[in-house]
Amino acid sequence: MEAANHNNDNGCTNESPYISSVLPGWFSEISPLWPGEAHSLKVEKILFQGKSDYQNVMVFQSSTYGKVLVLDGVIQLTERDECAYQEMIAHLPLCSIPNPKKVLVIGGGDGGVLREVSRHSSVEQIDICEIDKMVVEVSKQFFPDVAVGYEDPRVNLHIGDGVAFLKNVAAGTYDAVIVDSSDPIGPAQELFEKPFFDSIARALHPGGVVSTQAESIWLHMHIIEEIVANCRQIFKGSVNYAWTTVPTYPSGMIGFMLCST
Amino acid sequence: MEAANHNNDNGCTNESPYISSVLPGWFSEISPLWPGEAHSLKVEKILFQGKSDYQNVMVFQSSTYGKVLVLDGVIQLTERDECAYQEMIAHLPLCSIPNPKKVLVIGGGDGGVLREVSRHSSVEQIDICEIDKMVVEVSKQFFPDVAVGYEDPRVNLHIGDGVAFLKNVAAGTYDAVIVDSSDPIGPAQELFEKPFFDSIARALHPGGVVSTQAESIWLHMHIIEEIVANCRQIFKGSVNYAWTTVPTYPSGMIGFMLCST
Repeated sequence: MEAANHNNDNGCTNESPYISSVLPGWFSEISPLWPGEAHSLKVEKILFQGKSDYQNVMVFQSSTYGKVLVLDGVIQLTERDECAYQEMIAHLPLCSIPNPKKVLVIGGGDGGVLREVSRHSSVEQIDICEIDKMVVEVSKQFFPDVAVGYEDPRVNLHIGDGVAFLKNVAAGTYDAVIVDSSDPIGPAQELFEKPFFDSIARALHPGGVVSTQAESIWLHMHIIEEIVANCRQIFKGSVNYAWTTVPTYPSGMIGFMLCST
Repeated sequence: MEAANHNNDNGCTNESPYISSVLPGWFSEISPLWPGEAHSLKVEKILFQGKSDYQNVMVFQSSTYGKVLVLDGVIQLTERDECAYQEMIAHLPLCSIPNPKKVLVIGGGDGGVLREVSRHSSVEQIDICEIDKMVVEVSKQFFPDVAVGYEDPRVNLHIGDGVAFLKNVAAGTYDAVIVDSSDPIGPAQELFEKPFFDSIARALHPGGVVSTQAESIWLHMHIIEEIVANCRQIFKGSVNYAWTTVPTYPSGMIGFMLCST
């Protein structure tokens, strides 16, 4: 980890490929996943820029959304609206089954999902497998109100590939699996594919539930259709798409696949 | 009405104050109503720019959202997502009462609300009062699938100030009033204030219902709180806030006040 240097008067370095492409002092989120549109946040100061083994990691102080975590140019969370995402991806599955005890989080390196899972008193064990150590470290340094999730003694952090982790899990281990992934370009791509959902179904015991980040109906209907089709083949119980509003995510909303064994 | 001239290779004129402030060829929506953030759409070609008696009017062809109507730099509708707004602001009130017959639309010059109101077979009379004639003309020229609402023979168009129009309405005239306004900066400001809601309540007969554009809970909670407080004093029936997602509106969502007499 190294902090950003060479700030100019706006607190912006000249090194970020994401700041230079718009108004001076604004971060713009441009991606082939949402062509022809961009959401921009005014930047007060870049707090961190680094390149991990998997992706570019950036933290900046925005003018009106608090601190912002960015991976490969895509906003992962802002202090102002992270609650909407973390609460929905965690409480929708955990409130849908009685007394969840063992929970696995794939991704979610910022710790926000852990924070919400910890609120369930029935939970005895929370395993998390995050591929990128730098995301964990940066979150602990800059987002203490999110990374507070790591402080719960029930949490066991594994740094590694979620796909490989799941293959080594004994069948029927978990009551709930929560997949808090980035978009299906980059390190999270496999987390949207059928073999991964097969592994999740195997890792859940009967009556267990999975919740995965599942993109926006306004932007990614083809991705969602494929996930739904796969899940209908794999999961014997219910297969549902849920969603919530998150203003700093593309289209202002984000969905979740909720499936049960 | 005059069409835009002097297009450059991107189809962008140098005359628009909204295009020049960002990436060449992108429209950015920047307003004190949502400080520190901006949503941008890639511009294929500017189709119209004009200045009416009330506001700047612009239409452009976007890369991925179809044609876009912009008033004073703020997106009013895009071909891709206008349905979400028009359907909710019209069908929520009209489906909440039995057999609506007389409906008044304030604003809504693009015709989209008229299109949705027309789908209710019980409706016998649809009055619309839009302040800006240019909005009506531009919509008919560039958004035929929206302005189609004007073709219904039950529609009576009044060009004028909605506040003044309502004062001249006989008490108890309408079953439903729909206020399809722009934001409370500019010509629509009065449409968010208490005297206007008083006039609406007077114009509705007992059991009537009003639906007004009421901003986003993520961005304008102080505006919404004030509207709710006013409506609770004015309306004897229910007072509710509803909302839907519209990706090209700030925060990706927009709300409606639904009140009954």
